[in-house]
Amino acid sequence: MTPPRMLYLQSGGPTAVLNASAQGVIETARKLGVSIYAALDGLAGLLDGRLVNTDLVPDEGIARLGYLPGGHFGVSRRMVGSYEEAPEDWLRIRDVLQRHGIHYLLVNGGNGSLGCAERLADFEARTGYPLGVIGIPKTIDNDLMGTDNSPGYGSAAKFLASTMLEVGLDMISMGRGRVFIMEAMGRHTGWLAAACGAARRKEGQAPHIILLPEVPFDADKFLAAVDDNMARYGQCAVAVAEGITGPDGRFVTEANPSAIYGHEQLGGVGSWLAALIKRERGLSAHVAQVDYLQRAAGHLASATDIEQAYTMGCKGVEWALAGKTGLMAGIRRLPGIPYRWDVDAVPLGVVGDQEKALPPEYIGADGFSVTPAFLDYVLPLMQGERMPVFRHGLPDYRRIEWPAV
Amino acid sequence: MTPPRMLYLQSGGPTAVLNASAQGVIETARKLGVSIYAALDGLAGLLDGRLVNTDLVPDEGIARLGYLPGGHFGVSRRMVGSYEEAPEDWLRIRDVLQRHGIHYLLVNGGNGSLGCAERLADFEARTGYPLGVIGIPKTIDNDLMGTDNSPGYGSAAKFLASTMLEVGLDMISMGRGRVFIMEAMGRHTGWLAAACGAARRKEGQAPHIILLPEVPFDADKFLAAVDDNMARYGQCAVAVAEGITGPDGRFVTEANPSAIYGHEQLGGVGSWLAALIKRERGLSAHVAQVDYLQRAAGHLASATDIEQAYTMGCKGVEWALAGKTGLMAGIRRLPGIPYRWDVDAVPLGVVGDQEKALPPEYIGADGFSVTPAFLDYVLPLMQGERMPVFRHGLPDYRRIEWPAV
Repeated sequence: MTPPRMLYLQSGGPTAVLNASAQGVIETARKLGVSIYAALDGLAGLLDGRLVNTDLVPDEGIARLGYLPGGHFGVSRRMVGSYEEAPEDWLRIRDVLQRHGIHYLLVNGGNGSLGCAERLADFEARTGYPLGVIGIPKTIDNDLMGTDNSPGYGSAAKFLASTMLEVGLDMISMGRGRVFIMEAMGRHTGWLAAACGAARRKEGQAPHIILLPEVPFDADKFLAAVDDNMARYGQCAVAVAEGITGPDGRFVTEANPSAIYGHEQLGGVGSWLAALIKRERGLSAHVAQVDYLQRAAGHLASATDIEQAYTMGCKGVEWALAGKTGLMAGIRRLPGIPYRWDVDAVPLGVVGDQEKALPPEYIGADGFSVTPAFLDYVLPLMQGERMPVFRHGLPDYRRIEWPAV
Repeated sequence: MTPPRMLYLQSGGPTAVLNASAQGVIETARKLGVSIYAALDGLAGLLDGRLVNTDLVPDEGIARLGYLPGGHFGVSRRMVGSYEEAPEDWLRIRDVLQRHGIHYLLVNGGNGSLGCAERLADFEARTGYPLGVIGIPKTIDNDLMGTDNSPGYGSAAKFLASTMLEVGLDMISMGRGRVFIMEAMGRHTGWLAAACGAARRKEGQAPHIILLPEVPFDADKFLAAVDDNMARYGQCAVAVAEGITGPDGRFVTEANPSAIYGHEQLGGVGSWLAALIKRERGLSAHVAQVDYLQRAAGHLASATDIEQAYTMGCKGVEWALAGKTGLMAGIRRLPGIPYRWDVDAVPLGVVGDQEKALPPEYIGADGFSVTPAFLDYVLPLMQGERMPVFRHGLPDYRRIEWPAV
């Protein structure tokens, strides 16, 4: 009798701990005696039948996998519509699954990918081919519904807050007159920019202003806040989400650039704000655009985040083998201090294609700060360190070779 | 009899290990029984008589100082000209030194600050007031003459190379078609951008292109190199120094922007390159502008760099007390493998107001890479890790209070 076989795939933008989920998946599969293949490049590889066999990689390779940033099996933005929308995709998937005797699918991704997982949970009903589908959450954006937080977010938050703290010390050294802008990711939600606020433990420390997509950008109010901080503290550090919007709901960098500056915008919103401050106040600002660094910084991953990512992978395998389907392993925060959490079974329908914004109780009344309630939320997610092994002064991130199927 | 008293000051841009030099200075002064004051905000504080007394801070505070990024006593760009140029500055300095019985001055700075130190080494000859002056090197730019490397560089190099390595893994995950540009500091020299090259241990890995101020920028050749990398590897990661210049010697971001794009440039050279690639090749590039993060990243400081910064501070105190003056403590690389170094006494005249460019033997023949000789140079400087203590998920960077004099 052929042993049961699972397929694991990674989808969407990578995180610092996505491979920790993969490690949890593969180690649990081994423990439970189930064969596990992985699709290359997410759903694209599933559709093309580009699979690798993780069973043939020694245990130490799988242990090392959990330290690597990025998505080691490759990710893609390829999505799969409903059976009605894309029947040919469904048939291609059935062929691949059938060829390899795969009856469990683990989708490790964000809201779009988990939306695909939700649709594919109907696989048996639509195609007659038995398939259990479990979602494993992942995104630095922290915008998934049905889970207290998303694996990947805690590590990105830790990197952003730590570097903001470090830059804050650098700025204090340099004395009065400095403006600094740190642009974080976050097209639609402010979780990442808000995390910078964890660096501010005392009045007057960086970041002095936090700009969130959840709060419509008002240039006059912003400039007044800059003025206020320059007057009080002689400096102003700004954390800004890439996706802040004006009152019209459009990204500020898209809204009428020619009317404002007479030219197409280069750089991101950080550079745009620097130009605004220069023009309106004559102040030169330094701009850091953190970009991929914030989601790839395995050297400063949060141990809590790693543990959660790993555990969600384990649960995915356990649940699939137990015959569950249409669920995502979510993180439930337990009441009380210190921080404790357990795993929640969340119907994929709650998660897929949804987006969770920063709730109002986490945003300061001035619209430029985060509340103590947000710090209580975010600090435990950054807790703990786990440095990678270093060789020759750099993290040992040698890749692992996967035998093709 | 009053014990001998020293004055220590920090000048220019901070680094991740500048305070490790301060720790070395203060701990050595304590060991040798000399009182040590520090000027606030570098030469500005010396001129204004804004001094603090480090003698009153407990040993554990001084030990903790070495972990803090930034310049804890404050830095400034205030310089002091020659006696002929600025006699009133010299007299103000004499008054301050005399008032506090200070006869030794330790200047911890880069080339401009060490130029001031060189001039002030004439203090007794010009003013009759006995003063020994010793320089302690510091700059992430690594452009100081007379020393194999500058404290501060190894840590910035480690941060840049580690994050480039991490982004490289992220890019591999995402597959073909990606362009990424990481902008490093370096107005005049390419040491920092070159350090990104340490992330590339195999053909085809990021960074695929390194742009240095030492190599005049040629847009056609650059675009051809982008094309070549896209064809070979399906992606292209670029490390660029902020100060790359065109064949006319002007910064590329200043050279005729209106003729090229019809508008003022926002963002740095990274955004400028992204716009060039977009216009000429239709490719969208991600841009990271690392800015202050690269010089403030105490969480990823190089242990070798810390040890060197600390030792230079120790030597400065020892030499000053031994009656030496007009010298900088430099790092001499000893021949052979593994890397070994000792301390060299370098006349300040060799260092002050000079600038050391990346030598031709460190630059690849294609003008877009670094040589194995450069890797042999830079890797030992990044060697070793020393994480700060973390509290609540963030580095414990609580500041130390200095009693004013």
